[in-house]
Amino acid sequence: MNKLRVGIFIFDDVEVLDFAGPYEVFSRARLTPGLESRRSDETAPFRVFTVAAKAETITATGGLRVVPDYGFATTSPIDLLVVPGGFGTRRLLEDFAALDWIRGSAAGARQVTSVCTGALLLAKAGLLAGRRATTHWGSLDLLASLDPTIQVERIRRVVEDGIVTSAGVSAGIDMALLMVERLCGAEVANETARYIEYQRRPIEAGESV
Amino acid sequence: MNKLRVGIFIFDDVEVLDFAGPYEVFSRARLTPGLESRRSDETAPFRVFTVAAKAETITATGGLRVVPDYGFATTSPIDLLVVPGGFGTRRLLEDFAALDWIRGSAAGARQVTSVCTGALLLAKAGLLAGRRATTHWGSLDLLASLDPTIQVERIRRVVEDGIVTSAGVSAGIDMALLMVERLCGAEVANETARYIEYQRRPIEAGESV
Repeated sequence: MNKLRVGIFIFDDVEVLDFAGPYEVFSRARLTPGLESRRSDETAPFRVFTVAAKAETITATGGLRVVPDYGFATTSPIDLLVVPGGFGTRRLLEDFAALDWIRGSAAGARQVTSVCTGALLLAKAGLLAGRRATTHWGSLDLLASLDPTIQVERIRRVVEDGIVTSAGVSAGIDMALLMVERLCGAEVANETARYIEYQRRPIEAGESV
Repeated sequence: MNKLRVGIFIFDDVEVLDFAGPYEVFSRARLTPGLESRRSDETAPFRVFTVAAKAETITATGGLRVVPDYGFATTSPIDLLVVPGGFGTRRLLEDFAALDWIRGSAAGARQVTSVCTGALLLAKAGLLAGRRATTHWGSLDLLASLDPTIQVERIRRVVEDGIVTSAGVSAGIDMALLMVERLCGAEVANETARYIEYQRRPIEAGESV
């Protein structure tokens, strides 16, 4: 079967769960339910890979070292782009190569998504102009300041307005499950959630802890 | 301050969220609440690192490549051991070097924990004998068969009986937050959950999706 290509952008000081949550969801989704279908990629609707500026090891927040599958120069086409967040995004707000790559990948993608402060990069790349969007609760004002045409949603976990943005860190899991639902149906999304023993939260949910 | 050393075992075909969830929680916990405290390690109660058999890149489920901080031969002392799961555990059930390393690390640790089918490795290493324990819902019977003295708990998300085991994949996040609570108090655990926008689930919760 033709798999949708999920490209996850990673960089130094990317927040671990921001990229690992969607990585888990997209890579473990299966069109056939159960344990056995997870032993191969046969009924996997997605092929997931990571992209960094260079094809060299990056160091995520906390020190986790990850080897990307591709660099900007060698990247594979992307159907679904995931831009995670983390403190590393602040540096990237002035990194024209990264912003250009995001803009170019977004133009070729069927769906563009962000987790947490990944939305800041989408905003800076001009992709959120005139749209509703969200980010980590600690960066809502910063998001608004980057582009005043963005309607910043302050109490939703996932915001769909062409581009799909999600709230902080673990909200990326709900975003990814919602994308699985939109692309493969609710049954596939719910069965994937059950496989990873995750209780989906309503996308309208604000930060309630 | 003296940080507790959290050693996370990783191996080929480890499930991504099994290790990344606890990695996120332990590495982002702070004794001082808020966003600013996350910009440095100053008030971090834990130092988190990964250990693999050799200090060489491992490939997690789905293809994510991670560079461990240590190999068995060079590992740093561990206060809190995390053994995650994934299909890679099946191979390790017959790997005496891995089981020996787990047994040795557990003997020196203040706390031993597992996520998902990591419990199978603890069982095979003899560490769950006579204890209550849990694992991913798909491996409850296998856990019972590995050591008939284990009281397998079938509907709890986290089981504390000296050694702390958790249910599948995302339950590792709740396990890690519970360990933060036990070691640093509920306020620190809840504030860390809020930082990562994760809604903690009751440890008595069974799989309900």
